[in-house]
Amino acid sequence: MNKQVRIYDTTLRDGTQGEGVSLSVDDKVKIARKLDELGVHYIEGGWPGSNPKDMNFFDKVKELDLQNSVITAFGSTRRSGIKASDDPNLNRLIQSGVKAAAIFGKTWDFHVTEALQTTLEENLQMIYDSILFLKEQGLEVIFDAEHFFDGYKNNEEYAIQAILKAQEAGADCITLCDTNGGSLPKEIEDIVKDVKEKVSTQVGIHCHNDGELAVANTLSAVRAGASHVQGTINGYGERCGNANLVSLLPNLQLKMGYSCIGSDPMQELVSISKFVHEIANQVPASNQPFVGNSAFAHKGGMHVSAVLKHPETYEHIKPEVLGNKRRVLVSELSGQSNLMFKAEEMGLTLDKNDPKVKEIIEKIKEMENLGYHYEAAEASFLLLVKKLLGEDITFFELDHFKILTDKESSDELTTEAVVKVKVNEEVVMTAAEGNGPVNALDHALRKALGEFYPVIHKMYLSDYKVRVLDEGEATASKVRVLIESSDGRNTWSTIGVSGNIIEASWHALVDSIRYHFMKQDEELEIIKKDTVKPPVGVNNH
Amino acid sequence: MNKQVRIYDTTLRDGTQGEGVSLSVDDKVKIARKLDELGVHYIEGGWPGSNPKDMNFFDKVKELDLQNSVITAFGSTRRSGIKASDDPNLNRLIQSGVKAAAIFGKTWDFHVTEALQTTLEENLQMIYDSILFLKEQGLEVIFDAEHFFDGYKNNEEYAIQAILKAQEAGADCITLCDTNGGSLPKEIEDIVKDVKEKVSTQVGIHCHNDGELAVANTLSAVRAGASHVQGTINGYGERCGNANLVSLLPNLQLKMGYSCIGSDPMQELVSISKFVHEIANQVPASNQPFVGNSAFAHKGGMHVSAVLKHPETYEHIKPEVLGNKRRVLVSELSGQSNLMFKAEEMGLTLDKNDPKVKEIIEKIKEMENLGYHYEAAEASFLLLVKKLLGEDITFFELDHFKILTDKESSDELTTEAVVKVKVNEEVVMTAAEGNGPVNALDHALRKALGEFYPVIHKMYLSDYKVRVLDEGEATASKVRVLIESSDGRNTWSTIGVSGNIIEASWHALVDSIRYHFMKQDEELEIIKKDTVKPPVGVNNH
Repeated sequence: MNKQVRIYDTTLRDGTQGEGVSLSVDDKVKIARKLDELGVHYIEGGWPGSNPKDMNFFDKVKELDLQNSVITAFGSTRRSGIKASDDPNLNRLIQSGVKAAAIFGKTWDFHVTEALQTTLEENLQMIYDSILFLKEQGLEVIFDAEHFFDGYKNNEEYAIQAILKAQEAGADCITLCDTNGGSLPKEIEDIVKDVKEKVSTQVGIHCHNDGELAVANTLSAVRAGASHVQGTINGYGERCGNANLVSLLPNLQLKMGYSCIGSDPMQELVSISKFVHEIANQVPASNQPFVGNSAFAHKGGMHVSAVLKHPETYEHIKPEVLGNKRRVLVSELSGQSNLMFKAEEMGLTLDKNDPKVKEIIEKIKEMENLGYHYEAAEASFLLLVKKLLGEDITFFELDHFKILTDKESSDELTTEAVVKVKVNEEVVMTAAEGNGPVNALDHALRKALGEFYPVIHKMYLSDYKVRVLDEGEATASKVRVLIESSDGRNTWSTIGVSGNIIEASWHALVDSIRYHFMKQDEELEIIKKDTVKPPVGVNNH
Repeated sequence: MNKQVRIYDTTLRDGTQGEGVSLSVDDKVKIARKLDELGVHYIEGGWPGSNPKDMNFFDKVKELDLQNSVITAFGSTRRSGIKASDDPNLNRLIQSGVKAAAIFGKTWDFHVTEALQTTLEENLQMIYDSILFLKEQGLEVIFDAEHFFDGYKNNEEYAIQAILKAQEAGADCITLCDTNGGSLPKEIEDIVKDVKEKVSTQVGIHCHNDGELAVANTLSAVRAGASHVQGTINGYGERCGNANLVSLLPNLQLKMGYSCIGSDPMQELVSISKFVHEIANQVPASNQPFVGNSAFAHKGGMHVSAVLKHPETYEHIKPEVLGNKRRVLVSELSGQSNLMFKAEEMGLTLDKNDPKVKEIIEKIKEMENLGYHYEAAEASFLLLVKKLLGEDITFFELDHFKILTDKESSDELTTEAVVKVKVNEEVVMTAAEGNGPVNALDHALRKALGEFYPVIHKMYLSDYKVRVLDEGEATASKVRVLIESSDGRNTWSTIGVSGNIIEASWHALVDSIRYHFMKQDEELEIIKKDTVKPPVGVNNH
């Protein structure tokens, strides 16, 4: 099959209309680079007429030398009653230096008279003039037919007239927008079919997710003949968001046989989705289709035993194709097959007839009952299992710590921690400042342990999350702390649960360090076998 | 129109297969009561054969006296090679005391030979015997045709044979399951149409969301003739979840004209969705279709001015119909119309020509740039605006505080706070313990202020959230603390941002208390006007 669908990304414009989504110019540039690697055909960078930040982006993005994507600027048809060439908004599109522009215009009669407060005739003229002006300046022009489906349902004749005007003015693509996001797949399909009979210009589709149908509506439009698809990474956008490109790409390309992007970039889908979540400071939903951590995670014991024999029994697609991977969850619902799989994945040798297997499962259930959640903290899980198997993974022990936080009226707050730990019968005491109790504790502990284990300086905490478990009691409730650490190559997650946030953080912190030391030890063993000598800077303890 | 669709909820069974979802027996009972109020036709309570917790639920739920919903138990066809009456699993369904049971059976030949490891013929007999046995015991029987769509695509003849066996045995409903969640709406529609021609029994549909299409797939099946719809509240479920009933109900009933539940319960949809999120300890996605906080939230200045004139310009449905409400967001993207709307909503008199309006907008942008996020903390927003308008909403001032956290080896951790505050030139110093620094601070502050403002004892903190803003620096990064407080009737949210978690918490805590005092003052003014005397126990300050 060789049906081509062109992908138009609007994460940087429509995506930032989502509640809680805010991107700096640098953020936008970083995301644009990733989108180019993914191979989308267009990147809508912003609305140069609406704010200086967007104009700044268009300047910066020129330095990027993108390989695959055309940078597009967004705007609207000219104001009523003036010439297109006098419209400041349209002129800013040209000043932005882009090769392609998307301008929206009204196609719903109600919006023309009520929101724009102009005549139906003048609106048609605004569409025509604006597109013609941009075409004369040599731009590729995409016409976004705002509220097209609501307009068509309300006044079919006028909606069609409006897009025919866009065609007459020379638009390169006419994108039908379900701006309010309330249409149903069958409606979209029927209306796009009708448009395809009346219009010879390329037809595009732009859906919103207010009915939880944006992906399905987009697929309906493509089946009916649309060949330009607009959406955002992770479905960010105003209200309930835009059509999610991260779900559209595998559906279109892997299931429906359309050609959108290459198959190599498809394997970067998980990584790009997470990258954008991170830059936009959004917490990824673990159940996000295709790319979520849970998307190929099996929990029920029955599913697990079947999927280990034949993945296709409970997987609709191969996770590797998108850069995702199969996971087997260990939880209170786990059976033996979950634990055995997990243990093997972590390189542990576990005999399923060993009575310790039962003991480990019991311990997990007990800890999960206390609020631990090992699905999210596999390093702590590994340490727990090793401890139950009798391995010594202690490395150091706490004697005591004290943390003092002090605030004088409007002055800055200071926090200091004093830590006393024992390492191989030696006792070391240190103090350090930090910009919070956990940070101070982390600093003091590093100072103390650094004397014995210089490898501690190779690791750092890369994320710190706090979750209140019993929300009814607020600051008095139990908290779960998740710490993510990294040594630059690998990351690992650890957990602590306690009524006291400091205690919970302490447990997660200690697990994180112990895991790092344990891994360094293992690597050291491997290196020793190969080279006899330990590498410089690593203490052999 | 009078097309009836029967709603089958499986939040308590399939929903708990979702990663991170775990419900106690009491949780399940609470949710069942809500589902009955919502008016779903069936509540699948669990799998009595799989664990004792589920059996316990069936005992407890009998005491509830449900009005609308039939409690259903879940199970599977008999094991191969034994009589249905000897199958412990099937017998537990009967022992659970339910009036209706849903049992799943294999309809995909590959699953029969590979996962079940039995013959195609024996599987058909297992379906027949199991249904017949339950029917003979007087139960209503729903047959869940597991992997039906994959089975049909692989071996159409066998898949149809399997459901015809279920019909022959007397099943009351045959539910076609897209177990792996990978089917497309058009496939579902075509296959259901074909089934409807071959089967006279009622047809049901059970979809998963692996392609972000579960809602659309379910609607396709209903359009093709399915009249029994399975799903979960908020779409919880294994991997990417099940079809989301919270989106299906308004689509089916309000958009497609099917009759599912009453129109009064429909207005409880937001409240039920949030209730289940809370019980299941899941963070609600603010962009959840229909019921999310952002579902009718308008951010872009252009949208805001239009929607204030005519809501239907940017809303696909009336938010009140589902118990949701329109929101206008104040953020760095805000224009004057957002601020004016918000101010009016909060009962502030603001003249749009007042030069302070511009000053307030500038201040909001500045604070948001520092990491504040007023969308989520409207009480802090109100205090900020009042302060900029010159109102005195201080009530008390900090002199200083100290917090000491102490941990001796494996002992419990102790945290103490000392607080010194000034109220009307009087200075008061108190100390208190807590199970964490913020909790200790909260306790000490309450003790100090309680002498002057006894109303402080009427309020409590109901939620406490911490968000790391710059995740790259972990415990050293900037944190945003959101505190939700309540006086039993109203709740309000406040915010603090700082490099130090204690400082950020302090700001949110102080805002929360000041907001409460301010509201009490306002009420007092109203009461004074009405009764002259202030009510007992409230200090007039």
